[in-house]
Amino acid sequence: MAKIKLSEISTLPPGKLEKDAIKTATAQIVYELDELQNLLYAQHKWSVLIVLQGMDASGKDGLIRDVLGQMNPLGVKVQPFKAPTEEEMDHDFLWRIHRYAPAKGMIQVFNRSHYEDVLVQRVHKWVDSDTIKARMKAINDFEKLLAEHNNTRILKFYLHVSRKEQAERLKERTEDPRKMWKYNDKDIEEAKLWKHYEKAYEDVFRNCNDIPWIIVPADQNWYKEYLVAKTLRDMLKGLKMKYPMLKR
Amino acid sequence: MAKIKLSEISTLPPGKLEKDAIKTATAQIVYELDELQNLLYAQHKWSVLIVLQGMDASGKDGLIRDVLGQMNPLGVKVQPFKAPTEEEMDHDFLWRIHRYAPAKGMIQVFNRSHYEDVLVQRVHKWVDSDTIKARMKAINDFEKLLAEHNNTRILKFYLHVSRKEQAERLKERTEDPRKMWKYNDKDIEEAKLWKHYEKAYEDVFRNCNDIPWIIVPADQNWYKEYLVAKTLRDMLKGLKMKYPMLKR
Repeated sequence: MAKIKLSEISTLPPGKLEKDAIKTATAQIVYELDELQNLLYAQHKWSVLIVLQGMDASGKDGLIRDVLGQMNPLGVKVQPFKAPTEEEMDHDFLWRIHRYAPAKGMIQVFNRSHYEDVLVQRVHKWVDSDTIKARMKAINDFEKLLAEHNNTRILKFYLHVSRKEQAERLKERTEDPRKMWKYNDKDIEEAKLWKHYEKAYEDVFRNCNDIPWIIVPADQNWYKEYLVAKTLRDMLKGLKMKYPMLKR
Repeated sequence: MAKIKLSEISTLPPGKLEKDAIKTATAQIVYELDELQNLLYAQHKWSVLIVLQGMDASGKDGLIRDVLGQMNPLGVKVQPFKAPTEEEMDHDFLWRIHRYAPAKGMIQVFNRSHYEDVLVQRVHKWVDSDTIKARMKAINDFEKLLAEHNNTRILKFYLHVSRKEQAERLKERTEDPRKMWKYNDKDIEEAKLWKHYEKAYEDVFRNCNDIPWIIVPADQNWYKEYLVAKTLRDMLKGLKMKYPMLKR
């Protein structure tokens, strides 16, 4: 992937789009997704992995609720990845990830992912740069394993918010009683490392395998939801799935 | 690894060795292994993966019982891999393997392994040769992941028996009441595919990463046990492990 400067990419929807029209379009896409997911499950040939990354408050949880969570829960699983447990630390960093790889017919959403091991760990200098390089290579190999050996289609979304938008959302968490549960002192500390995270993400994008990252302008939820839903819909349609014939 | 012709490698111990002297040496090594394994567990830095492959009746089970099973079970785990379950088939072929990768401080024995997916599946032509090549690459990457990202030292043993010895052992299973439980019609069918398995193994050896296969002449149990125990002992000693200091 070519070099990307996040600061040069807009976090806003393209100017010509109208919010109401887009929201209607999204509703239609979500409706289509329901049928496509049913087909994916029934055909039992492909699997889908959706990787969600982004700064704190970039809207990952909301996206899961409002778009990905709308499909039949029988065929959709969501797995959040937080700081590794002691048991997980006793293994290579992909060990805990691999067990949640999607089975055939399934859509698996990673709320944060194996990329944290080349992001947060790098920003805090818990590992050296050689380790980061080696991990990046291991991640690229690992994703190829899923893609080539289990028909896994991988969508990697970076939810791209501005620093200003993030600050507002974090502030909201201190003020809105319905959002206070999300507040964490640590987020304020992490937010100060913005430039370091930006750099770490840019390196991830540049060093990634041929499964591309999709940068999602995410200051406006309606556009973020539309773009993710549309990307997923288009990918699933491209699989040209068919219901299996009756086995006799 | 250079090209290996299994039919040109002896399945017998080197001529100059004396069975009794070797058995005494093995007992001494097994004694040392006990202490080394304790150190491995206590230091909690390295992990060990022992991969056992070989034709049917090449003596994998006996080796596990008589050598590897002599260590403290707290720090040694054995995992057999048989035909994959339906759930496992819904994932990439390394998914079921990865969850049994050794944690830090542990010795993990694989009784058969991820290599079955490029052996039995190839011999029976369940997958095409491109898939075999892609799997071999994935295996090499996977082992590097364990080695580089979890300090896993991998020992890959091929228990090398002659076709004649195998035939005798399979026959014994039909005659010795203590061994009849091991008898399986399918083994006789598989034994007929000897040449195909030999070729598949030779390709595995040739296409392997820089973690070498160790060919163990295995017609004589006493020599097989000695060589495996000695290899493990030497590897563990080479780690120059130390008991951790008291943390204050």
